[in-house]
Amino acid sequence: MKDTFGESVSITIAGESHGKGITAVLSGMAPGIPVDEGFISSQLTKRRPSGAISTARQEEDKFEVLSGVFGGFTTGTPITILIRNENIQSKDYSEIATTARPGHADYTAECKYHGFQDYRGGGHFSGRITAGIVAAGAICLSALEKKGIKIGTHIAKCGGVSDRKFGDIEKDIDSLNEKLFAVLDENSGKKMEEAILSAKNDLDSVGGILETAITGVPAGIGEPYFDSIESELAHFLFSIPAIKGVEFGSGFAMADMRGSEANDAFRIGENGGIFTKTNHNGGINGGISNGMPITFRCAVKPTPSISAEQETIDFVKGENKNFVIKGRHDPAIVHRARVVIDSAAAIVLCDILAKRFGTDWLR
Amino acid sequence: MKDTFGESVSITIAGESHGKGITAVLSGMAPGIPVDEGFISSQLTKRRPSGAISTARQEEDKFEVLSGVFGGFTTGTPITILIRNENIQSKDYSEIATTARPGHADYTAECKYHGFQDYRGGGHFSGRITAGIVAAGAICLSALEKKGIKIGTHIAKCGGVSDRKFGDIEKDIDSLNEKLFAVLDENSGKKMEEAILSAKNDLDSVGGILETAITGVPAGIGEPYFDSIESELAHFLFSIPAIKGVEFGSGFAMADMRGSEANDAFRIGENGGIFTKTNHNGGINGGISNGMPITFRCAVKPTPSISAEQETIDFVKGENKNFVIKGRHDPAIVHRARVVIDSAAAIVLCDILAKRFGTDWLR
Amino acid sequence: MKDTFGESVSITIAGESHGKGITAVLSGMAPGIPVDEGFISSQLTKRRPSGAISTARQEEDKFEVLSGVFGGFTTGTPITILIRNENIQSKDYSEIATTARPGHADYTAECKYHGFQDYRGGGHFSGRITAGIVAAGAICLSALEKKGIKIGTHIAKCGGVSDRKFGDIEKDIDSLNEKLFAVLDENSGKKMEEAILSAKNDLDSVGGILETAITGVPAGIGEPYFDSIESELAHFLFSIPAIKGVEFGSGFAMADMRGSEANDAFRIGENGGIFTKTNHNGGINGGISNGMPITFRCAVKPTPSISAEQETIDFVKGENKNFVIKGRHDPAIVHRARVVIDSAAAIVLCDILAKRFGTDWLR
Amino acid sequence: MKDTFGESVSITIAGESHGKGITAVLSGMAPGIPVDEGFISSQLTKRRPSGAISTARQEEDKFEVLSGVFGGFTTGTPITILIRNENIQSKDYSEIATTARPGHADYTAECKYHGFQDYRGGGHFSGRITAGIVAAGAICLSALEKKGIKIGTHIAKCGGVSDRKFGDIEKDIDSLNEKLFAVLDENSGKKMEEAILSAKNDLDSVGGILETAITGVPAGIGEPYFDSIESELAHFLFSIPAIKGVEFGSGFAMADMRGSEANDAFRIGENGGIFTKTNHNGGINGGISNGMPITFRCAVKPTPSISAEQETIDFVKGENKNFVIKGRHDPAIVHRARVVIDSAAAIVLCDILAKRFGTDWLR
Repeated sequence: MKDTFGESVSITIAGESHGKGITAVLSGMAPGIPVDEGFISSQLTKRRPSGAISTARQEEDKFEVLSGVFGGFTTGTPITILIRNENIQSKDYSEIATTARPGHADYTAECKYHGFQDYRGGGHFSGRITAGIVAAGAICLSALEKKGIKIGTHIAKCGGVSDRKFGDIEKDIDSLNEKLFAVLDENSGKKMEEAILSAKNDLDSVGGILETAITGVPAGIGEPYFDSIESELAHFLFSIPAIKGVEFGSGFAMADMRGSEANDAFRIGENGGIFTKTNHNGGINGGISNGMPITFRCAVKPTPSISAEQETIDFVKGENKNFVIKGRHDPAIVHRARVVIDSAAAIVLCDILAKRFGTDWLR
Repeated sequence: MKDTFGESVSITIAGESHGKGITAVLSGMAPGIPVDEGFISSQLTKRRPSGAISTARQEEDKFEVLSGVFGGFTTGTPITILIRNENIQSKDYSEIATTARPGHADYTAECKYHGFQDYRGGGHFSGRITAGIVAAGAICLSALEKKGIKIGTHIAKCGGVSDRKFGDIEKDIDSLNEKLFAVLDENSGKKMEEAILSAKNDLDSVGGILETAITGVPAGIGEPYFDSIESELAHFLFSIPAIKGVEFGSGFAMADMRGSEANDAFRIGENGGIFTKTNHNGGINGGISNGMPITFRCAVKPTPSISAEQETIDFVKGENKNFVIKGRHDPAIVHRARVVIDSAAAIVLCDILAKRFGTDWLR
Repeated sequence: MKDTFGESVSITIAGESHGKGITAVLSGMAPGIPVDEGFISSQLTKRRPSGAISTARQEEDKFEVLSGVFGGFTTGTPITILIRNENIQSKDYSEIATTARPGHADYTAECKYHGFQDYRGGGHFSGRITAGIVAAGAICLSALEKKGIKIGTHIAKCGGVSDRKFGDIEKDIDSLNEKLFAVLDENSGKKMEEAILSAKNDLDSVGGILETAITGVPAGIGEPYFDSIESELAHFLFSIPAIKGVEFGSGFAMADMRGSEANDAFRIGENGGIFTKTNHNGGINGGISNGMPITFRCAVKPTPSISAEQETIDFVKGENKNFVIKGRHDPAIVHRARVVIDSAAAIVLCDILAKRFGTDWLR
Repeated sequence: MKDTFGESVSITIAGESHGKGITAVLSGMAPGIPVDEGFISSQLTKRRPSGAISTARQEEDKFEVLSGVFGGFTTGTPITILIRNENIQSKDYSEIATTARPGHADYTAECKYHGFQDYRGGGHFSGRITAGIVAAGAICLSALEKKGIKIGTHIAKCGGVSDRKFGDIEKDIDSLNEKLFAVLDENSGKKMEEAILSAKNDLDSVGGILETAITGVPAGIGEPYFDSIESELAHFLFSIPAIKGVEFGSGFAMADMRGSEANDAFRIGENGGIFTKTNHNGGINGGISNGMPITFRCAVKPTPSISAEQETIDFVKGENKNFVIKGRHDPAIVHRARVVIDSAAAIVLCDILAKRFGTDWLR
């Protein structure tokens, strides 16, 4: 469905960059889950631009829980979260009503909506809509954590700089979730920030790769074929603006392996538990969890809004033109996108778990 | 949904490797589409193992259209296709009822189905289920071709050998669709086959990358967020066994680009048509087609069934063991998977187009 | 899905009687549909209690369109409507946290939500949630009217009093849509109001039957089986609180007919158009519209909140008790429910038409 | 979705009256449920015409389970059942390719499928497609019975003759499920059969009402709004050909009640269990089960195929005509439809229970 994802647990998103606000409706969460508004706030902060490497648009992302929470706990009925837009300067955008910013959806929106789209600041296509995903995802992350399931994402690569790989995954996740700029190695992080600033100085932007790990998912979750963990996660991940690639486990690197390397050998641990010696399959065999950490990576394209002059068209006049996108832009969004990935993964997992174990399992 | 994908046009798949057969139900296709059983057959042939580089299991893949076709045309009501299993040698597999073949779903199936799964030949997890996708997809491919939409996939990489890139895409697609081993450059193809045979001699297997191009999709198709073209294609593609990565356009390579490079500049063509100078976004902006070819790549992991001895467990006894998978195996499936990718893409596109333009558009 | 209905056009509803407000997200409406906030207001007025025959809780039902409308027209992206709750007197309800009001969902909510439900005023089970359906439905009704499709509902029966039958249906619909108490015969209406007041005086309530007609739906819309017009309408109608029966055309009366009577004879009209001499099938054959008015009737149970003493239980203490529901109650809701029915029918029809003719058809 | 119903447990149906056969794919059933082919057969027998009161078309309804069952148990993966058509006399139907049989879907099929529909014997609109529902439903009924849930339906009314009401419901259900002509009172049954034969002698047909009871459903199952038990059951029930009305509990009779009568008083039983003194709400409050028997009634219209001459049109020539449907017809289908109702209810309940308690609950 266009604006709703999930079956047993689902989310519906709406809003525009310069409209009245962003809403997310989270449906199907079990009753009795504590809702910590402070945690929702702190997650929204991770998505918000900050510092020299971000856009100058500053929003507090004040949110209001309109339904589905009573006395601090989920009721089991749909949870609506509203984040009103503030600090909107629509004058910055009015010029671009008919200009197709390269890499953006202005032209495709025109083709689909015939001129009725809200063109201000990307309208419904703006990354700002993901704030609703983050707010709803925070509730899911809390519920999962109570069940021993942790999710964390680091910037594996940005501006040509690579972070170190996951080591002790649970510890790494805890550490990442404390950070605004989520890297495992602080030195790499500094170099990434330098690369971002360098791009900014060049009136340009950079992309990156986000790597996510999920621990604590029991074996036997998911389904073969259309409800495979990969299918469901990828469906949601590719809904997030700027994500152009998703790979599970060793992903594209598996294309260069031989079977003897790619096959993760099953072993019985000392405690009788089952594990695999390697985890090239990212914790998933045949669409179903095998008990190992679920790992995946997302390619984030460079922010399409750059300050340099670009070639494009006026799609109403049907004319070529050169133009400069006014205003100040994010030279990178990869660091802000990471909490969106965590949130998306949490929502998808809650759905998969509720389908597998029923609507009460998460409480 | 577990076994059904799509809304306006949908497919439901069922079957096991060593059961009575494979079925696919294709629902929602417009009435009046010619159904060419010869073409379905030829598509199934592309998926079937053949030659030295494939398994010795030879099946004719005789299919029967049980419903939804009348007088050679689709009726508009659901089309059921049955492909009976033949040439089954279940004795090859009986030993493995409790052994987790590495890289396979034997262990995860046990966790999910508690011993009731049909373990013979991978049961429902077998790549053989994709025969139903291919048969149904053939009808979709025919319908799309009549509307000027072409789909083609080549083996971009296999066993470390790369094919040439797409050139004249429409011509390349036509050429690929005539081939059993789909490469653009025949010399590369020969080297790939050598690499496959070399792996086979080493009792091993290889993986690869499949690259797909779709031409003729009008601009303005798809939706932002959960019905984005990327989300819908990736959902289906990750349902196909062995696919561990999907990227659109330049995908993961965009992570290393700057915005000035990744932003595809819009231009007005001599005929007044709109195109982009590059196509790093793979024909999709904001989830919606921009009229350029839609391109994506899938990572195919090496066949997990290899002839070498492997470490694993008996998951009923809870014991480590070494074992050798008996029988003969595909040292590569990437060349057989390409027609599955084409078929999946065709089914997804028919759904997207029917949602956009209505149930009669495809006729 | 729990809180979302529809595929190409869908609605997601949320909220509680005494929470912050009610929200509805309408997704998939074509771009370019004029949105008349005055019409939404007037539709909400029809649902609002008024006069001696209604509850004393008076709400203005001020609504805010948060997204999806730009410059007075739909954008094509999701439309969020928020109706804040006002004039809430939660003290009236606090006593009933553990008392199962007969005919209400207090006990079933406890069984499902384990005490976490918002019990104030029925919480999420309150008829108040239908305000969101009415607001969203108003946009759908406007879009349909532009395409020549009209929907109207009258109180066919209430408190034992019957209204006259539909005559000139289009004219009757126009007339009904001007009224707050929707009857075709004013005298019958007065008798119904007397019956309602009489029940109120007896500390009791009455039910009724709502009959709906839809004109202008072209033949060939809908699907056999699970997307039959009957299935889709009934699914939504039975989601509306207090609806306990739905019948199409002559419905249950057909059970007593013979085929020679029930079979609506097809005829060619003078203008070459096709019609049926009778319309026992309610404009639907095999789930698909035949061009005749679509007609259906809904049974509305009497308001379960009555002022008389009733037997019930305290479901926490596990004790029988007698109790009186405090506050003032609607002695009938049938007249308020009629605009909910119109709205539900409009939303369902928009979905069916968008699936049939594509997402742009309604503009 | 058009041909698929359900989320956690779903069914996909396909086939035509005179095509190769009917298929049903049942997806999402828990692993480990015993599949008794003899019981499936006996259920199909209940749907099959028999005796003087039925059509002369006799089919054995031999079925084949193509997938999803291994060693006599469900595997947890999709179950495909194929029932081939036999004893087809297509010559009986060839004349009617362009004639709209009154009360049938011939004309609406033409409007939707533009002449490509399989017109033989009603094609996809034939009641024969319900054989797939019965076969799949038999597996669901078995699974439910193991969990203490029983479903039974009687012919509450047929040809103007009423059966007695349900008494000891569980005992009545057991008794009904042994019968081919399902009445609680044998004398009423005889009178019904006489009424049917009388209609047959008049070249006519009769309709009726089917009443269903479901016992053993725990309280707290279902959801408010769109996944209400009423919504889900009604959605499926209205997909069954000839069903024109559905009511729960006292249904339309509640429209004439006052609240004091319609409100089912909750009471604590001697064993501490909770029950209601009456069951006008049919075991459902706010869409959720309250532990009382779930009861509903379906209006079945008289068989539209009658032997008398009827007025109609040739929709290709655009001409009025009188015609007689050749062949022999069912003068009533209400007795055959009852097992379809049972089966539909079982499939819907399995879905609702799997959503509530998870995919393993039914095993």
